[in-house]
Amino acid sequence: MQFLHSDIESLEKHYRTQLINSLSGFKSANLVATINSSGQTNLAVFTSVVHLGADPALYGFISRPNSVPRHTIENIKDTGFYTINHITAEIIEPAHQTSARYTRNESEFDSTGLTVEWHAAFAAPFVQQSRIQLGLEYRDSMRIDLNGTDLVIGELGFINIKDDVIGSDGYVDIEQAGSITVSGLDSYHSTRKLASFSYAKPGRKLQRIRVEK
Amino acid sequence: MQFLHSDIESLEKHYRTQLINSLSGFKSANLVATINSSGQTNLAVFTSVVHLGADPALYGFISRPNSVPRHTIENIKDTGFYTINHITAEIIEPAHQTSARYTRNESEFDSTGLTVEWHAAFAAPFVQQSRIQLGLEYRDSMRIDLNGTDLVIGELGFINIKDDVIGSDGYVDIEQAGSITVSGLDSYHSTRKLASFSYAKPGRKLQRIRVEK
Repeated sequence: MQFLHSDIESLEKHYRTQLINSLSGFKSANLVATINSSGQTNLAVFTSVVHLGADPALYGFISRPNSVPRHTIENIKDTGFYTINHITAEIIEPAHQTSARYTRNESEFDSTGLTVEWHAAFAAPFVQQSRIQLGLEYRDSMRIDLNGTDLVIGELGFINIKDDVIGSDGYVDIEQAGSITVSGLDSYHSTRKLASFSYAKPGRKLQRIRVEK
Repeated sequence: MQFLHSDIESLEKHYRTQLINSLSGFKSANLVATINSSGQTNLAVFTSVVHLGADPALYGFISRPNSVPRHTIENIKDTGFYTINHITAEIIEPAHQTSARYTRNESEFDSTGLTVEWHAAFAAPFVQQSRIQLGLEYRDSMRIDLNGTDLVIGELGFINIKDDVIGSDGYVDIEQAGSITVSGLDSYHSTRKLASFSYAKPGRKLQRIRVEK
């Protein structure tokens, strides 16, 4: 089945949104937690967190101007800090529920049953149920003029993670840590490792690495 | 185990790269295919393809100035077109091999055994083995000054996909289509659907949807 540019443009709005959201491939599944200067916490599911570089350690995510998690970006600009918390299979339902349009005065922590956790070393709230918790400091926001969305960029300043999921080479076994992945707008998937491969060079056969696990 | 900002900054380079690449969560697994004005094809694995918006249908990916897939962005700017092809379990090894530093005059198609496929309606090469094939028209490139990378943005202009993986609501069952996901720099994972949830509203219990599959 083929869709040309004119076919894509003429699709019904909801159908189109599901289709275009599905086609980029599997997505990261994270809860972004913030607090505003009045002490009100906020929590929102984001599936657009993307690695931008390791030195400095930068991650980005896409913020839509008129979308639900707008409180997130307001709080980030207000305080300068936010956290990224991996979603696990046990919390997919409350994680999805954070996408509802709660008012500014309602905390998605209270509404969904997810638990606020604080770490002394970082100035934003974490999700206690997440087994991979990252603290980010806001660095920049870039407007994408083509559709009015923003790429929000932060630098990694804090990691909380179990020792046993970090390999000797720095690889984090996020599957073992229970992290899951998202497709489209609403579908959650667990994973099963197929293989890890050695660094690729021309003319050299790939080796399977970390096969002991 | 906790890492503070100073701990992260002082990590050994390769360890740090693996660690930071792993922590964003699961990533999309795509092959970006291009051709230059001399007719030389190029193919490179990208794990940073991200959905930017559905109307217009925009996807972005991150291009590193000094990295291997630099030929990709040169060709995109040269011709204005490129394709995104989902990686399936059957082709994870040749897909990973495309990350080797081949010279400008070598096509990763020839070097890895992946097959060029052309569709009459689109002016860039596709990967025949991919079951989800997308054609993109280049729209913009935004420099991220914090680390010198570029967000390359394209508009979806062509889709080739089997009818039976598109639901009546536009959701594409990319798991059924065989698409896989990546963690860190080198690890490939298949998926198993846990649940799809209804659109979330405050005070309303989520329903599981598409349960017939």
